[in-house]
Amino acid sequence: MRKLRTLAVIGVGLVGGSLAMALRRAAAAGSIVGCDRDPQALERAAALGVIDRAADSVCEAVKGADLVVVAVPVRAIGRVLHDVSLALEPDAVVTDVGSTKGEVVRIASQELRERASRFVPGHPIAGREASGVEAAVADLFRSARVVLTPTPTTDADAIEVVKAAWEAAGARVATMDAERHDRIFAAVSHLPHLLSFALVSEIAARDDAAELLGFAAGGFRDFTRIAASSPEMWRDIALQNRAALLEELDRYAARLAVFRELVDRGDGPGLERLMTEARSARHAWGAGHRRSASSE
Amino acid sequence: MRKLRTLAVIGVGLVGGSLAMALRRAAAAGSIVGCDRDPQALERAAALGVIDRAADSVCEAVKGADLVVVAVPVRAIGRVLHDVSLALEPDAVVTDVGSTKGEVVRIASQELRERASRFVPGHPIAGREASGVEAAVADLFRSARVVLTPTPTTDADAIEVVKAAWEAAGARVATMDAERHDRIFAAVSHLPHLLSFALVSEIAARDDAAELLGFAAGGFRDFTRIAASSPEMWRDIALQNRAALLEELDRYAARLAVFRELVDRGDGPGLERLMTEARSARHAWGAGHRRSASSE
Repeated sequence: MRKLRTLAVIGVGLVGGSLAMALRRAAAAGSIVGCDRDPQALERAAALGVIDRAADSVCEAVKGADLVVVAVPVRAIGRVLHDVSLALEPDAVVTDVGSTKGEVVRIASQELRERASRFVPGHPIAGREASGVEAAVADLFRSARVVLTPTPTTDADAIEVVKAAWEAAGARVATMDAERHDRIFAAVSHLPHLLSFALVSEIAARDDAAELLGFAAGGFRDFTRIAASSPEMWRDIALQNRAALLEELDRYAARLAVFRELVDRGDGPGLERLMTEARSARHAWGAGHRRSASSE
Repeated sequence: MRKLRTLAVIGVGLVGGSLAMALRRAAAAGSIVGCDRDPQALERAAALGVIDRAADSVCEAVKGADLVVVAVPVRAIGRVLHDVSLALEPDAVVTDVGSTKGEVVRIASQELRERASRFVPGHPIAGREASGVEAAVADLFRSARVVLTPTPTTDADAIEVVKAAWEAAGARVATMDAERHDRIFAAVSHLPHLLSFALVSEIAARDDAAELLGFAAGGFRDFTRIAASSPEMWRDIALQNRAALLEELDRYAARLAVFRELVDRGDGPGLERLMTEARSARHAWGAGHRRSASSE
């Protein structure tokens, strides 16, 4: 990639910090400036050498930057893009790391207006259980997938800048439209999270929850690990991707009704057939994902 | 425990083999005889020293044994108990290791008739991904929970024999009635398995399954690990525990409908509240189960 003169990272947490570290290691950025609404997190990022310079405001961070990475929770993207728009250099490029994309595209169009063609919506599929800049590692995106969802009006050179940055961080970049992205992730990520939260929610609300949970074992542990995820983050994802999530919920409910019907009428061969198809698909997937990232 | 003269293990797989190894290590059995419908598995069990002697039939294994452990899949328990009834010594005790208990109690009553008072239904909550006698380990039940579900007509001394054997293997034994057992495990084990199979089944059936699965990550991996379980085993469990499983499915569907409604009307505080309760319950549970058995 063409080396960036200055990279600005707005939100120096796990994702923003890890990308800064990866681009530094790849010698892909001359200087890295960071900004965070938590002054202590920003101080730690500077102390850890994740950023070269701490900016007091989004505007200050964005001035002089040729790539601005907005790595804040989805609900804060609008506010940040508003400030970005006030100071963005003429040829600079902006990207984000949010887990939903349709709503982000809408917000970016509204906040960046005529500069929206410089915005390349992005979603890195990587994470860790831990959060914050202390958990950041230069390897977080190695072999991870990153989805970019440019619109028909996004500048081609802006897409190339963002793609090159992620590739320099070791990621594999795919491009699709935001609606397709949101449908895919509703199915393979947002829905499973909601299903897991719902199971624990149902059991936890019972009078005999303690006894029930006392007999829960490994299957329950794996199935419900994602119910220990951030409620704020998953509330926002569910609401930002509402339409696609509702559609996936309804498809799932319909499939679950098929399983229910098979159990109800004691249809062993029917149950075994669906379970065998599921197991085959899961095995085939698992064989290809032994070293995939640990979360999304 | 009073030392067993002869332990008979019918079905020398992971569970039967591991119990034999644990009781041998605890010097709790004088002699261990094994029987398996797979002659090669039985040979390997003898070659590995898991059993002292291989019997050609259930009747031969049961003759002279003071404890008979039936460690076969739930669908085969009826056939085995039929043969056990033909050769069981007057004071001998029989137990099983099936994941459902109400149906097993019914079958035992039918097959063992007047000897049913010597049958103590059991369910060890332990397992491994691997199966077969080669995967057996003496430590499988260390700190694991075992549930016994005697009926009002089960002999008290028979319960004590089975309880002592599991405790000698390192397990913690709980006693409850079969209906309660089946409700608990429908909620924390059988339902999550069905939900996981249903998600993979729904996605795998689509034309774009490969693309969807290509973007699945760590959350999907954990949520669907149990969809790689044995379809035969889970078909049988679902059908044997049909009534309780259907009830749990309906409770879950109702809770999922609450989540759907919150998403549909954009109720962020409502979603966050339920998700936060779920996360708290999952955290509290996880803290107490860091070293729990890996599967059920």
